[in-house]
Amino acid sequence: MKKSIGIHERLYPNPVVLVSSSFDGIDNIITLAWAGTVCGGPKMISVSIRPSRFSHQLISGSREFVINIPTKSQVDICKYCGKNSGRNVNKFKKLNLTKHIPSVINTPLIKECPINIECRVKDIIKLGVHDLFIGEVVYVNSDEEIIYEDGDIDYEKLDTISYCMGKYFKNVLI
Amino acid sequence: MKKSIGIHERLYPNPVVLVSSSFDGIDNIITLAWAGTVCGGPKMISVSIRPSRFSHQLISGSREFVINIPTKSQVDICKYCGKNSGRNVNKFKKLNLTKHIPSVINTPLIKECPINIECRVKDIIKLGVHDLFIGEVVYVNSDEEIIYEDGDIDYEKLDTISYCMGKYFKNVLI
Repeated sequence: MKKSIGIHERLYPNPVVLVSSSFDGIDNIITLAWAGTVCGGPKMISVSIRPSRFSHQLISGSREFVINIPTKSQVDICKYCGKNSGRNVNKFKKLNLTKHIPSVINTPLIKECPINIECRVKDIIKLGVHDLFIGEVVYVNSDEEIIYEDGDIDYEKLDTISYCMGKYFKNVLI
Repeated sequence: MKKSIGIHERLYPNPVVLVSSSFDGIDNIITLAWAGTVCGGPKMISVSIRPSRFSHQLISGSREFVINIPTKSQVDICKYCGKNSGRNVNKFKKLNLTKHIPSVINTPLIKECPINIECRVKDIIKLGVHDLFIGEVVYVNSDEEIIYEDGDIDYEKLDTISYCMGKYFKNVLI
């Protein structure tokens, strides 16, 4: 039997990303599950952020952001960066995360995350309580350790996570 | 050490959804990994589809679609619906999938999928080789079996999957 479970807006599950931003000398990190791959040419990823969030302000100012892919061992970092505002705390410092120099844009990568995707904002679309940032991918950085010699990714080492409704999942190859 | 792995557009990993569509008496299913949760109010989910796909034509015509959440046991269905066009085959019939009556819109749900999210198209945004369909969630149907008495979801029974670069992952609670 099918039944209604209310009008929820979420997928089952969502990816989890740590988005770093930088504007006017201030760097920040926000955890987002509302992110999506949206275009294959030009290559684009979207993230949804409420206007009240500090990262919204920084990314709107700089028109760029980095999608840092966390691993299973970084769930506590994800929880912290999702619950605390960069207006009150320097999250890089608080969490002992290392700023790594980006390749193309000016926003620091999170060195401890194995994949870091540099994006330039192409558009900001007002949808409702969230704004949709469309980011064009301009560079993808990866830790050497997670790449096989043939260029493929070792997903066991990458060890990604997903998220739904306060719960985190590890992703296991099938 | 960080190194470039080329300019890829993808998240690690993406969700996997079976999107059903219906227009002019024809029903279809397409597998998509390029889907995202995009707004919490009004509640919205996006999917990216190339204009050449048959589902693009159907959803553009009907202005509605259903996001059906597949389980680990349905990976072969996902592979089939991602590789074959509804122009050449009736996928519901070919895969012995059951059309379930929707609650609000006119597009059939895939009964065998435990969660079915009915969406009306709010906007179609041309990004490049993909168009981004912004869908407002108007009803969420769920199998009774995956819901606890308190309304929470039993994620072990839901048994969702994720996708990246041709590889499927099962999602395990951590």
